[in-house]
Formats: sequence, C-alpha cells, structure tokens
Amino acid sequence: MSKGYHVAIVGATGAVGVELLHVLERRNFPVSKLTLLASARSTGKKLSFAGSHVDVRELDAAAFDGVDFAFFSAGATRSREYAPIAVKAGAVVVDNSSAFRMHGDVPLVVPEVNAAAMMGHKGIIANPNCSAAILVVTLQPIQAAAGIRRVIVSTYQAASGAGAKAMAELERQAREVLDGKPVTKEVLPHQIAFNVFNHNSAVAENGYNEEENKMVEETRKIMGLPSLQIMPTCVRVPVFRAHSESVVVETERKLTEQEAREIFSKAPGVKLVDDRAGNHFPMPLEASGDLDVHVGRIRQDMSCENGLAFFVSGDQLLKGAAWNAVQIAEHLIRK
Amino acid sequence: MSKGYHVAIVGATGAVGVELLHVLERRNFPVSKLTLLASARSTGKKLSFAGSHVDVRELDAAAFDGVDFAFFSAGATRSREYAPIAVKAGAVVVDNSSAFRMHGDVPLVVPEVNAAAMMGHKGIIANPNCSAAILVVTLQPIQAAAGIRRVIVSTYQAASGAGAKAMAELERQAREVLDGKPVTKEVLPHQIAFNVFNHNSAVAENGYNEEENKMVEETRKIMGLPSLQIMPTCVRVPVFRAHSESVVVETERKLTEQEAREIFSKAPGVKLVDDRAGNHFPMPLEASGDLDVHVGRIRQDMSCENGLAFFVSGDQLLKGAAWNAVQIAEHLIRK
Repeated sequence: MSKGYHVAIVGATGAVGVELLHVLERRNFPVSKLTLLASARSTGKKLSFAGSHVDVRELDAAAFDGVDFAFFSAGATRSREYAPIAVKAGAVVVDNSSAFRMHGDVPLVVPEVNAAAMMGHKGIIANPNCSAAILVVTLQPIQAAAGIRRVIVSTYQAASGAGAKAMAELERQAREVLDGKPVTKEVLPHQIAFNVFNHNSAVAENGYNEEENKMVEETRKIMGLPSLQIMPTCVRVPVFRAHSESVVVETERKLTEQEAREIFSKAPGVKLVDDRAGNHFPMPLEASGDLDVHVGRIRQDMSCENGLAFFVSGDQLLKGAAWNAVQIAEHLIRK
Repeated sequence: MSKGYHVAIVGATGAVGVELLHVLERRNFPVSKLTLLASARSTGKKLSFAGSHVDVRELDAAAFDGVDFAFFSAGATRSREYAPIAVKAGAVVVDNSSAFRMHGDVPLVVPEVNAAAMMGHKGIIANPNCSAAILVVTLQPIQAAAGIRRVIVSTYQAASGAGAKAMAELERQAREVLDGKPVTKEVLPHQIAFNVFNHNSAVAENGYNEEENKMVEETRKIMGLPSLQIMPTCVRVPVFRAHSESVVVETERKLTEQEAREIFSKAPGVKLVDDRAGNHFPMPLEASGDLDVHVGRIRQDMSCENGLAFFVSGDQLLKGAAWNAVQIAEHLIRK
C-alpha cells in the first residue's frame, strides 16, 4: 500500500471506464496494480495504461481480492450486485451508477462541495449524476456567499451521457444526414444528429424525466439543502462529450454581477470564461477534456431583483463522471 | 387587384426569401405578378414559382412600381433605405428586418396575438425576431387565461437564424469534423458543428446579447405588456432550421397542467406534441417545415407555486420569418 494502490475499474471498456484510465494517468494516481473488469464480450481486449497493456477480464465475485479502490461504471444493476462484494473484499467502491446515490448511509460526493461527507463512509461512495455534479460546483460558491432560494436550469446534454454507443450514433447519423441516406437509430429514441430532444430517460407521472429528478434530489443531497427549490429541464443536443447548462438562481442576498464574477473566479473546480467583447463564453467544445467546469455569461437577472444568470459547460465524462470519481479517491488518500 | 396582387420579395435568394416563395405557393397566395429582388451579384438567377421561372433583378428605387405587397428580408440597412420608397410607390411593406420593429408608429405583428395592431398601419408592418415570434404564440393563450408575471426562457437556436450561409457552414463543418479535417469558420464566430455557444449577436454592457434584448422588447410590444418580466438566454445549437425554447412562466392565477394542456390544444398556431409514455415532445427536426409551433413537456414548475414549464420548437424560417410575414399579408387581404 505504501507505494501505491490496487485499483479496479468495473466497466473498463465503456465511455467512462476509458476516461477513468486517462484520468488516473493524467493525475499520476499511485497505482501499484490495475484490474480491468468488463462483461464477457469484452474479455480478451487489452487497454493501455502508463505504457503497458492491461488485459480486460470478466467481472466476477473473485475479481476484488486485494483491491483498494474499485471504480464502478457499468450500470446500476452491476453495481447493486458487485459493489457489496467489493466492499466485503476490503475495497473502497466509488460508484458512478445511480444504485446507491440516494441511500441514507452512502455519501454522495462532489469534493469541491461536500468532501467532509466522505468521513465515516461504509465502503461505498456514490459519484453523482453528471448534470448534478457540473451544476453543484457552480451553485456551492453562490450558496456560501448569498444563499440560494431557487434554481431554474435548462440543460444542453451531450451524447456521451448515454454512453460510447450514443457518441458513435451521433457520428454515424451525422454522416447519414450529410450523405442523404436514411438515418438509423440504435441507441437513442430520436435522431440526435442536427436535432434536440427531451432527455432519453423515462418520464414520470409528474412530467419530469428521470434525469431531471436526479438533478433535483442529488443537488439537494450533495449541497445538504433538502428543500432547495429547483426547476430543471433536461435536453439532449448533438454534442459529443460536454454538457452545458443555462442557469438562473434567486438568492437570499442580492449579488451583483461583479460579486458573482469574483466568487466564481475564486471557486475551486471552476474556470471563468466570460469575455463579452470577444463573445467568448463557455462552450462544450472547449470544456471537453478540461477537469474544471467553465462558467460565464454572468449577468443580473432582468426579471427578478435577486436573480443571477450564468451559463456552464463541463466535460460529462470528466467532472460529470471519471474525474469526480478519481477526485474522491485522491481525497480519501490524503486523509 | 381583383384577381391577385403584385408581390415583390426583397432578398429573394436568401434563406427567408426562398421560404417566402414556398409559403406563397403552399398557401395559394393570390399572386398576379411576382418581382424578385436581390443584390447585384444575384441578378441573372432564376427562381421557380408556381411552375414558371422568375428572373431575379437588382434592387433599385424603381423596382416597386405597381407592387401591392413587398416582403423585405435583406437586412436592416436595405429595409431602412428601400422600405419607405416601396411605401411611397403604394406597396404595403412586411419587413422581416429589425429596422422598424420598435418604431412607435410601426405595428409589430404576430397574427395569432395582435392582428388588430395592423389596423391603421402607415405602410410598414414589422415581422418580429424569430425567437420572439415563436415564443409569443405560446405565451398569448397563457396570458389570456391566467396572466403572466414572469418568463424565464433558454433557447436552442438553429443555424438558419444566421442565414443560408450559416446553414451551409454547419454542414461543411460537420463534414470536416467527421473527416478529421481542420474546421473552417466563415460566418459564425465559433464552431457550430457538434458545439453550442452564446448567440452570435453583440453582447451589451449589461451582459445580454442583442437577440435576448430583442426577445424582451419585442415580446412586450407584440403582447402589449410593456412591463412583462422576461429573463432570456439565447444559445446556438447545431440544428439546421428550427428553434427550440425551454420556457418557465409564473402566472397570476395558478394553472394546472391539465388546464395548460387544454389551453394549448385550442390555441391558434400551436400543435400539441406531449406524449410522455412515448417520450415524444417538440423537436426541431419535426417542427421543420411545419407552420405551427410545437408545444409539449407541459408540467407544473416544482420550484414555484404558480409556475408552469413547457418546451417549444418552431420553424425559424416559417413561423419565425416567412410564414408570419405571409400570414400578415393574408390578414390584410381578408380585412
């Protein structure tokens, strides 16, 4: 343990799994041994890590012997079955699925916001929904400075949130449209190329989709504000891998635009991109690959005395998934 | 005049000009003579209309002799210069530019909302900004039923709003990205293919872009509500020709979701697309080519007692431009 940790990645060949490998490399995470796990159809593949090729093996109950950190990103069903096994084997599980996020005894963590919630964890720490993770990094400094009453947020969500196959579908469909061919649909319910549609999760009785419900309940849990008022609209756009969010907040204490800019410029995990003269603000294209969440278009809400508007872009696969997970592990190591 | 009208189109070869021709055909607009006008570099071109080919001639002061309806869609500078000349020559001008929209003696009209404002016009009737036109069709029935206090709107705007060249740029850039080539920018300030960015109009001192300011002031003028509170965020998305808008309204009287659905189902110019079980809601792809504005995702705002949320898609070139202009002319003929 002194020279490094035995790290396992469950779902290693998925969009987030691949990013986890990149982030571990990029952060020089102290890996002494790496176990890559996936479903049977991916076994035999090799993935490169820090200059060597690592075999992908099939996920089974024996896979977690000696593992220190197990990053799960293979869906809620797999997490529900194998995360407890990994914990029993002695691993700390950082789970990217929705399986345990709302469990009372599982911390749901965005380190910039509630790192302290990790104390006293019972083996599983949940990584939040991508849209919520990106949002709370920007809400937290506003909450600390002025108190938030209400949040109205409309998202511009990338294909990556629906996995590597959805990213490939965006590419394939774009080609089909450009070539004048019929558009084929395999992953997403509607054509994503050159189109926009309601998030592809189920719509509940009250008209909200699952993604919107996650944004509300997870934001409340992470920020420790169980009655925070949030009005979300989650929308897919034809972008590969970074989510954007148009945010309006109503605060207890009025914040000037200058104060808000100052607050964001000092906030952890946030990069200010707010050049009015150059019409240069957060864009998914520029946020892609960046660990920080980009924030800009900061302006007074002209419809509400205590309102503040801003626009956010954050890499769905990084801050929305892999980077936040690795950040959690880094925090645990430091403590 | 009894058998038809002499119609002129200024900017006939532009994205909106071409749509004006299609809409006049589609509506069987009583055209007895058609004059197509454009800048010098388009003269010599022919455009097809109702089975024949019509020459495009250069816009000049003599072009409006005998014209009954002149549809202008060649930018504000051209409208400022030639619309008064057309009026002097006896034409009614329906102007798609921003040149006269906020003039006190020029009606700014969306027929579903304020057809009566056309009475007593002085020769020029202004066609609104596309985002405002699409929005007010959906706000008006809510205003009539329950009174609107505040509107929070985030847009998903198509390339067509920046003209035919921007649509071509989206196509060209998408190919470049797919082919792994460097992306070239000619029209829009940022890459539009597989990206999202702040609307490409200038950003004012207060942080709002021109499109947002237009949405606010034009919505107020069209609806006759000079102090309506509106918080707009205008964003470009990689879609060809229909705009979408995520809308949250706060009403004086609380509307249930069922009441709102009922109201929209009876509203002129609106098509309800609100299938929760099928996850089928307004999409720019389906709204493209449709004269009606699609409305769906109708739900109670979970963050505000009197709040209502919905999602809108409308064809930017049709209800946002050409169709609204022809609708204005149809109204004038009927009166």
